[in-house]
Amino acid sequence: MSGSGSRPSGARERLVVIGGDAAGMSAASQARRLKGPDELEIVAFERGHFTSYSACGIPYWVSGAVPERDALIARTPEEHRARGIDLRLRTEVVEIDVARQRVRARDAGSGAESWTSYDKLVIATGARPLAPELPGVGAQGVHGVQTLDDGQALLDTLSHTRGRRAVVVGAGYIGVEMAEAMLQRGYQVTVVNRGEEPMATLDPDMGRLVREAMAGMGVTMVNGAEVTKVLTGDDGRVRAVGTEDAEFPADVVILGIGVRPETTLARAAGLPLGAHGGLLTDRSMRVRGHENIWAGGDCVEVLDLVLGQERYLPLGTHANKHGQIIGANLAGGYATFPGVVGTAVSKVCDLEIARTGLREKDARRAGLQYVTATIESTNRAGYYPNASPMTVKMLAERRTGRLLGVQIVGREGAGKRVDIAAVALTAGMTVDRMTTLDLGYAPPFSPVWDPVLVAARKASRAVEQHR
Amino acid sequence: MSGSGSRPSGARERLVVIGGDAAGMSAASQARRLKGPDELEIVAFERGHFTSYSACGIPYWVSGAVPERDALIARTPEEHRARGIDLRLRTEVVEIDVARQRVRARDAGSGAESWTSYDKLVIATGARPLAPELPGVGAQGVHGVQTLDDGQALLDTLSHTRGRRAVVVGAGYIGVEMAEAMLQRGYQVTVVNRGEEPMATLDPDMGRLVREAMAGMGVTMVNGAEVTKVLTGDDGRVRAVGTEDAEFPADVVILGIGVRPETTLARAAGLPLGAHGGLLTDRSMRVRGHENIWAGGDCVEVLDLVLGQERYLPLGTHANKHGQIIGANLAGGYATFPGVVGTAVSKVCDLEIARTGLREKDARRAGLQYVTATIESTNRAGYYPNASPMTVKMLAERRTGRLLGVQIVGREGAGKRVDIAAVALTAGMTVDRMTTLDLGYAPPFSPVWDPVLVAARKASRAVEQHR
Repeated sequence: MSGSGSRPSGARERLVVIGGDAAGMSAASQARRLKGPDELEIVAFERGHFTSYSACGIPYWVSGAVPERDALIARTPEEHRARGIDLRLRTEVVEIDVARQRVRARDAGSGAESWTSYDKLVIATGARPLAPELPGVGAQGVHGVQTLDDGQALLDTLSHTRGRRAVVVGAGYIGVEMAEAMLQRGYQVTVVNRGEEPMATLDPDMGRLVREAMAGMGVTMVNGAEVTKVLTGDDGRVRAVGTEDAEFPADVVILGIGVRPETTLARAAGLPLGAHGGLLTDRSMRVRGHENIWAGGDCVEVLDLVLGQERYLPLGTHANKHGQIIGANLAGGYATFPGVVGTAVSKVCDLEIARTGLREKDARRAGLQYVTATIESTNRAGYYPNASPMTVKMLAERRTGRLLGVQIVGREGAGKRVDIAAVALTAGMTVDRMTTLDLGYAPPFSPVWDPVLVAARKASRAVEQHR
Repeated sequence: MSGSGSRPSGARERLVVIGGDAAGMSAASQARRLKGPDELEIVAFERGHFTSYSACGIPYWVSGAVPERDALIARTPEEHRARGIDLRLRTEVVEIDVARQRVRARDAGSGAESWTSYDKLVIATGARPLAPELPGVGAQGVHGVQTLDDGQALLDTLSHTRGRRAVVVGAGYIGVEMAEAMLQRGYQVTVVNRGEEPMATLDPDMGRLVREAMAGMGVTMVNGAEVTKVLTGDDGRVRAVGTEDAEFPADVVILGIGVRPETTLARAAGLPLGAHGGLLTDRSMRVRGHENIWAGGDCVEVLDLVLGQERYLPLGTHANKHGQIIGANLAGGYATFPGVVGTAVSKVCDLEIARTGLREKDARRAGLQYVTATIESTNRAGYYPNASPMTVKMLAERRTGRLLGVQIVGREGAGKRVDIAAVALTAGMTVDRMTTLDLGYAPPFSPVWDPVLVAARKASRAVEQHR
């Protein structure tokens, strides 16, 4: 074993970044923007082939809407290197030695290992799939869609597969987006989902609207069904997905079943992990109790501002923010990540699905008493051409009337309306205050009472009645 | 003169409403919902032919997008009457006698007048056009678009006019929406505008983007030009619009030049008016100093929560809120209108224009020191199909970093993004806090950094630099 094991000398500090995607490379780039190579050396390790890409864009690349893989890459390894970042691709960090401030990395090609010391460390190891230990899951034609490599492998399979039957396992946002992608490619799509309704990030009454809309698009929705095995043909290729009761023939299977924090290294190094297995940080994104270690992206837990507790919410938009904040702080600036309210938005064909804050289940678990209000309205004035329906569900705390959460299912213009609620949650607003929010109105954009205001009025009356 | 001049007796109170549009009839309907006819008699006077219609929808009716006038009517006179509201159309209130709690009304047909006493009064007299006392403004073919009657008269003109040259006077939201309407109908459209740029509700640098986009749509934009006369042919019909320097041939002229509060009655009755000529109310929408008189809609001034001063902002969305609040209060409930932040959104063909809070001019006048940040981004992830550009300008207070205003010009998805800023303004948020707002992200809806977040980051840096 060789390596740059000795501590860097003099004024120049060394920053080591583990993980070359959104959080890690945003941190590195931001730090580089603020400190030149004469002040700060930056070494970044990435075990895959790519850096700084939009994993969220993979469904649209698979569908064909985004024609080229490279469009998803925000910044290539060469661009990072041109900015003075010593980027080591296909190199996996296999140990963090906190006491001696160094990491051990292994070159995927040669298998050679070496130590690199650091003054400051950023852990951005991301997430790994909650891959069920299913019999047959390794069969040809079974694909996850977490990474660009995954997406490329899926596209390779599709290019040489004759059959047109796709089974998507899971009906969270990845599952429904992949269902759209496969519909767009002309596949017969079956979604097999453990929950009673798709989109478990919504309450079941709102998930039902998604199920009905997807069935209307021609997707076969199988809910309340746990996949127990993948069945393989004599050629080693997938031929079906099996549940307790049934088999669903498949020429290709896509696993859209969520992820958990990739914190194997952090755990081995004795760094603090939360109840969901993610790293715990302070508001400056520094790992708790460690002056010179930061962490961000899909490997950390985030503070839920509505619950007042940490949650695991791996989303690219948080990872990018974390990276910026870490980069500013480790270059001697000051920035904080106050937390999240749990906003997410997805699209399946023309159906828009959005949520923020707490579901009924979350509120109950947290000991919060609440009222709900569900309303139907339209995205434009009712008389305006192509006005389409929208359902808004709102949760408010009993007695205080504080907004707790909003879920929206509709068509064009429905999804991003959730931002109104996201800001209101951040501000701790009551639903009564929300009834008079001065939102943009013109007939092409909204009824004279925006659907969010209509929901707030109904929720406010419910608070009044259950005070 | 005859009339129900004696005070109503016993337990049953009488509510009189002056004005049958959004604010007045919302108040009447809400009061009726809460109190039956045995408790509350409701008499409503409307000088026109229609009730409860969407004046904001007139451009879309004129363009043909909304095929029928009646689609704009939310509730007909017959529907109001069926709910137990004594609605008197074509009947104009000509005097309010505050001391004796009665109003004098004149029947437009017979000219007969009578007094009606009230226990509670709602003034919802709306606005009247800032019609310039232009020579020739009364010519055939010159139309305002304030009321349904105006819209009908314009459509009648269009149906028997051969020429295809339309001149729109004014480039505020009515002007630009009417420009779109006339384009849709196949007219050659010239907009003659006093200001240096269209949309004076924006700063000129943002108005420029609107001018350029409208020119690109084929609209002839004449800015910095005050209309001084309307020129008439021998047939009494309009033939051109004249400015100091030029004449613009016109087969039809549309006046889109704003309104002022219609408070002639209120002024004569000695009710309190503000600096902009609108009635002054308290937060419950009661006319200041008058226990039993409420006012709402386009005849009142509203508190601007950012400025801390009253402004005149006649918009249907405020009128509807006022009506609801008045109705609740006069039925013994409790509701308040906290004020506005000045949000408005408009569309010209596929261009979306939005603003909230203060312009630079407003901030300067109010003695506020500020920084600005203008950014360009896209409505979707850059790699997603049909991503289109969006410009966001943000104003923040110097030193405190408090958000002061946002202006947005872009295409699909640009306009309603202003709601994010509207809620943030309401909450008194700083631009620094806005940088980490948890807004909805997925590639079809937004870049990973929403354009509003990008603007907040730039504004936050500007605050830092000018602290």
